[in-house]
Amino acid sequence: MDINAYMLNLGIAARAASLILSRADSATKNSALLAIAERLGSARHAILSANAMDMKNGLANGLDAPLLDRLELSDERIGSMIEGLHQVAVLQDPIGEMTDLGYRPSGIQLGKMRVPLGVIGIIYESRPNVTIDAASLCLKSGNACILRGGSEAILSNQAISACIAEGLKDVGLPETAVQVISTTDRAAVGELITMSAYVDVIVPRGGKGLIARISADARVPVIKHLDGNCHVYIDDYADLKKAVAIAVNSKTHRYGVCNAMESLIIAESVAQIILPQLAKIYTEKGVEMRGCAKSRAIVGSIIKASEQDWSEEYLAPVLSIKIISGIDEAIEHINKYSSQHTESIVTEDFNRGRRFLAEVDSSSVMINASTRFADGFEYGLGAEIGVSTDKIHARGPVGLEGLTCQKWVVFGDGQIRE
Amino acid sequence: MDINAYMLNLGIAARAASLILSRADSATKNSALLAIAERLGSARHAILSANAMDMKNGLANGLDAPLLDRLELSDERIGSMIEGLHQVAVLQDPIGEMTDLGYRPSGIQLGKMRVPLGVIGIIYESRPNVTIDAASLCLKSGNACILRGGSEAILSNQAISACIAEGLKDVGLPETAVQVISTTDRAAVGELITMSAYVDVIVPRGGKGLIARISADARVPVIKHLDGNCHVYIDDYADLKKAVAIAVNSKTHRYGVCNAMESLIIAESVAQIILPQLAKIYTEKGVEMRGCAKSRAIVGSIIKASEQDWSEEYLAPVLSIKIISGIDEAIEHINKYSSQHTESIVTEDFNRGRRFLAEVDSSSVMINASTRFADGFEYGLGAEIGVSTDKIHARGPVGLEGLTCQKWVVFGDGQIRE
Repeated sequence: MDINAYMLNLGIAARAASLILSRADSATKNSALLAIAERLGSARHAILSANAMDMKNGLANGLDAPLLDRLELSDERIGSMIEGLHQVAVLQDPIGEMTDLGYRPSGIQLGKMRVPLGVIGIIYESRPNVTIDAASLCLKSGNACILRGGSEAILSNQAISACIAEGLKDVGLPETAVQVISTTDRAAVGELITMSAYVDVIVPRGGKGLIARISADARVPVIKHLDGNCHVYIDDYADLKKAVAIAVNSKTHRYGVCNAMESLIIAESVAQIILPQLAKIYTEKGVEMRGCAKSRAIVGSIIKASEQDWSEEYLAPVLSIKIISGIDEAIEHINKYSSQHTESIVTEDFNRGRRFLAEVDSSSVMINASTRFADGFEYGLGAEIGVSTDKIHARGPVGLEGLTCQKWVVFGDGQIRE
Repeated sequence: MDINAYMLNLGIAARAASLILSRADSATKNSALLAIAERLGSARHAILSANAMDMKNGLANGLDAPLLDRLELSDERIGSMIEGLHQVAVLQDPIGEMTDLGYRPSGIQLGKMRVPLGVIGIIYESRPNVTIDAASLCLKSGNACILRGGSEAILSNQAISACIAEGLKDVGLPETAVQVISTTDRAAVGELITMSAYVDVIVPRGGKGLIARISADARVPVIKHLDGNCHVYIDDYADLKKAVAIAVNSKTHRYGVCNAMESLIIAESVAQIILPQLAKIYTEKGVEMRGCAKSRAIVGSIIKASEQDWSEEYLAPVLSIKIISGIDEAIEHINKYSSQHTESIVTEDFNRGRRFLAEVDSSSVMINASTRFADGFEYGLGAEIGVSTDKIHARGPVGLEGLTCQKWVVFGDGQIRE
């Protein structure tokens, strides 16, 4: 197989499809989503058979248990994919929205119109349901996409891809609006992330290693999400009841998620009172605490944190704890060690809250709320394709709007420049 | 000189300065701009001497006349720089603006806050006044910057840089908020565009060659402006008076600018009437016309266009002319050949205008207005650091807002996730 030629063909087809998709109306795009859902329902058996073969190969290739769990499909998981398509179908279509229309002194009326990005390349790992997630969000936002799933899921993804193609055909949209790369050759990824004439943006979904590799080699803009090393800072003026609730919820509501707190910062003046209360709850819940010398002097069961702990995204029942002098040191510590994902301050003081909001350089900054709120559903985006820790374009949770951009529109009645 | 170590030091200093600058209030930033203006005024003699030396070296190195013209400073040009600083000082400060605040079902109040990008690297060619332009826009938008001017302007840029450093010091801001790279070694550019830990975005200002080179090698997001191959399409339903005014203004108002029309597309049904009128005016103004066979059958003085002409950004009194069947072919031709900068339709028909607006994939799309309006001043941005032909983040004219991004802010009173 000539990978260059194969990828070039995908790129050309995607670009052509993107023009048609960009002008498809909302009703047609929604019909396509529902048609795909129907095709998935009818193809359950074929999808499960393909998945069983992927699972068999995965076992033979020695994939570990968590990976196999993510790879495995079931009637219920196919049901969730169908449900997801219905949910995206009812979301508001962002395309064509015009804002900020106003007259300029020259007499032209100037505004902005929301438009698709064009062609989106999405690279992901084992979960085959991402194929449907990604395809549905791209479709709804008027973008063509080229999808590259994990090699361990190739047969499942091809079965799902067939349903997508049929659904698109059912409503008269080009099948090439969603293309799943059919080779497991790694060179295909290398092509995808460098063919800037045919791909407008890359969204990698997967582990830190995958994302770092793609970002390093890409010649196309990447919407990337690296770590989620989130902090809660309990200020001198915190309401202690709120502080306990937020510090417990941020850490223990779910462990393996990017918006979980990984590091707790406490002002010295309240640490004596609050840390023992918190430590008791964390211990009950089986959270390992690693702290600075001051925190260990207050709670003996806290083990010694290393410098590396301040930067760590545990994604596990582990928490680093640091006692600091106050708001200045808190902001400094967070801006130094955080991954710029989400940070929250607990305080009743107006000026402290205001400073934290302005000076902490993260994609979500909160006052008196759990870091766990930082996601697309809680933010009302309807769906989420990832959380961006970049500062360009999409920052924080990325929903449909993150797959669009705005162009300037000008209405005139013959204006020329003097 | 160890370029790696030198650039690393600049990067570390810029990152530290960016934290201070991001929290500087508007009054301090404006005072800094005015202090720099005053320092420039006092240093006129030193700046002109340094520039005279650059000019002497440039002549000795065989620089061509247009380059020498761009390099040369005068009392008047220094006056313009001072004037520019005053203009940026009165612009609205975009930082801290909060929008879209609303309550979510969970009770949190969610919104967006506009914040600086952090550290901006700007790479430009001969004009030393860009040093002041770039520094003032970065400063006002709360960003630190690292500037790399052309090697032919190194002495002029260092003299200007000294004024900037003094002005910053005058108001108590760190001198390292604006750093001008003091070596002409090309390796410094290579470092600048790859040190993603210290630089958040690169803005190249210069010729297509420079921008293409930087985009290819950058590991940091680039806000880039490639060609301006702008089109005017005169539709079947055009008002012919408006059409003539717009087609003449778009081409002849100024030739060497990126928002000048380079290609004129005319619907067949009106070409017979309008093309001779336009050709007469273009001929009087000395514009060379290169056209398709149909246009040459109507106006004999039009010379034959090659395939390459449809993609060309002439930046000169040259125009390509194509007669097409109507709106479908017009949109297709433009999306195929344009550089996605600015396109305008002349029509009185509601549906034609609406389709052109939705389907032409360019950063500015206009109805019945001259393409020359596509710039930061006409759009009311106050100042312009360039025109982006990218689809990510800043698209079209980039002003202060293009040097910022938004973060999410959440206000709560103790909310946790259930």
